[in-house]
Amino acid sequence: MSSDLEYISAVDARRLATDILLALGLSSGHADSIARTVVLAQGDECYSHGLWRLLGCVHTVRMGKVDSRAVPAVDSSAPGVVKVDARYGYSLLAFREGLPELIGKASRLGIAAMAINRCYHFSALWPEVEEIAESGLVALAMTPSHSWVAPAGGIRPVFGTNPLAFGWPREAAHPFVFDFATSAAARGEIELHGRAGKPIPKGWAIDSDGEETTDAARALQGAMLTFGGHKGSALSAMIELMAGPLIADMTSAESMAFDGGAGAAPCHGELIIALDPKIFLGGGMGEHMRRAENMFAAITDQGARLPSQRRYAARARNRERGLPVQTALLAELRETLASLS
Amino acid sequence: MSSDLEYISAVDARRLATDILLALGLSSGHADSIARTVVLAQGDECYSHGLWRLLGCVHTVRMGKVDSRAVPAVDSSAPGVVKVDARYGYSLLAFREGLPELIGKASRLGIAAMAINRCYHFSALWPEVEEIAESGLVALAMTPSHSWVAPAGGIRPVFGTNPLAFGWPREAAHPFVFDFATSAAARGEIELHGRAGKPIPKGWAIDSDGEETTDAARALQGAMLTFGGHKGSALSAMIELMAGPLIADMTSAESMAFDGGAGAAPCHGELIIALDPKIFLGGGMGEHMRRAENMFAAITDQGARLPSQRRYAARARNRERGLPVQTALLAELRETLASLS
Repeated sequence: MSSDLEYISAVDARRLATDILLALGLSSGHADSIARTVVLAQGDECYSHGLWRLLGCVHTVRMGKVDSRAVPAVDSSAPGVVKVDARYGYSLLAFREGLPELIGKASRLGIAAMAINRCYHFSALWPEVEEIAESGLVALAMTPSHSWVAPAGGIRPVFGTNPLAFGWPREAAHPFVFDFATSAAARGEIELHGRAGKPIPKGWAIDSDGEETTDAARALQGAMLTFGGHKGSALSAMIELMAGPLIADMTSAESMAFDGGAGAAPCHGELIIALDPKIFLGGGMGEHMRRAENMFAAITDQGARLPSQRRYAARARNRERGLPVQTALLAELRETLASLS
Repeated sequence: MSSDLEYISAVDARRLATDILLALGLSSGHADSIARTVVLAQGDECYSHGLWRLLGCVHTVRMGKVDSRAVPAVDSSAPGVVKVDARYGYSLLAFREGLPELIGKASRLGIAAMAINRCYHFSALWPEVEEIAESGLVALAMTPSHSWVAPAGGIRPVFGTNPLAFGWPREAAHPFVFDFATSAAARGEIELHGRAGKPIPKGWAIDSDGEETTDAARALQGAMLTFGGHKGSALSAMIELMAGPLIADMTSAESMAFDGGAGAAPCHGELIIALDPKIFLGGGMGEHMRRAENMFAAITDQGARLPSQRRYAARARNRERGLPVQTALLAELRETLASLS
């Protein structure tokens, strides 16, 4: 595999990504916020959220679903809530525009929420909770997606893959961050198994009769399952509710209907909750944050990994040598840029 | 089994519970808040959190760990956070004393948090999130416990059984409520299997060498596992952090050390987050809450159950005929009262 990779600097990668997005017609704010995120993911070796995403972006923009120049509108009128209307643009610029208000409110009140509405999903949630945690706050983020996942005890899809992400600030280390889908597996993983002619593991999906299946095609026609049985299913329902109706946005079933079979990125809402330890802890903050460090040590001292630990190790590794990019992908991205220019 | 049950009215059950707790020396506030909760659980046929708990309460109070007359202190000085110091009393009175402030803050700001500190755990979290949801708010609650559960990839316990509970208000129905432990099973379930000489299911626990075990005794000496692999483990870590260091309280490992082998109920903190849909949704509230009802219908119309549905059915069933109580338990409770009086 390593012979298929080459290394480019983060600056070059960001330039390439930005140039493609600008050539595609995105406003500079959208181009910048997306380029920043895909380059971060590439450097962390989260390839499925890295530069590869730009190709999907070209597809989605060409379909005309997403407004590539949408200007997010920030409404801070509720004391503890920031509402950002993404106006059918990508989510990342809306996040960026609302973030200072979210941090400001949480720092004054102790806790605050940000609701991003009418956005097209872009990338994972970990870059967002990581950034909030880098500001010293605790963050929780969630979104619905498209209804591919059956509730526990059911056979027809209701929920999305509904990710949940969490970030915790650490003084002398990268934030503690996790970001997981509440489905047992990613939909893309099932598709990849299908293309490779490989059976999928049990527990990922059921067929349209509700029977457990290891056949990728039957799984995609049936329903995916949540992780962790009825507990994962409950969690997925919570995400539907809090990042859907609570913030005046669509559930996964509504978002899928809205898509109308186009297969675009899900259009939906996102809820982010931020909490400020300084307000909770005051002068005792140092002492209490050390309790958290003791817990992290109790995990890592026995050889278990913290979530995101592998990602941070990749980031450190790639800081000097540059970002690993598949040679074929890099060529495709350069061709895409040439064809757009 | 039904021959072992008799039915008593909720009024009689509450009187019996209150009398036992008062005779035990609890202040009327503690006695009342505990009696209310155990009677609710009994009527919902959650027997492990019902009247049976009073026997454990007698044990814990006699050990002298819990302050049975502690007066909770409410600190509302932070705009978005209510801090309730339970002063080493039971958690339920602290919850009750802080609740009006939590609801008031959430209704003004849109979101607020309540941190309950230095409390002895009592009962499940669902009565609390259900009550908040009955007030029209969305609620999320969590606590650490004692460190019995290994992190994913580890073999030594770090986490507690760390429950997470969620409540969502519904206009024409009981709230949508779930409350689950992030451990694969309850510790009491493993103990019950051991006493019955039955093997425990795979996936519940590992022995002290880190090998999967179906032997209850080896499991109790080893470590319990989280539900849902690394995702459940991440969630459990989040609960340790948010309901521990963030609110100036103990992690599960610290709480277990504090217990010093006494085997009392865990002394710890609890974090509750409340969100007010009225602030998020304004005039569009009716329309958006109906989106949630559509999602519930998509679950129940295919024959799947909502969490708590079985509990609410029991409540309805027992409203007329009274609360089912095991005859042997009822006799033991009456003897306990006689011995205390």
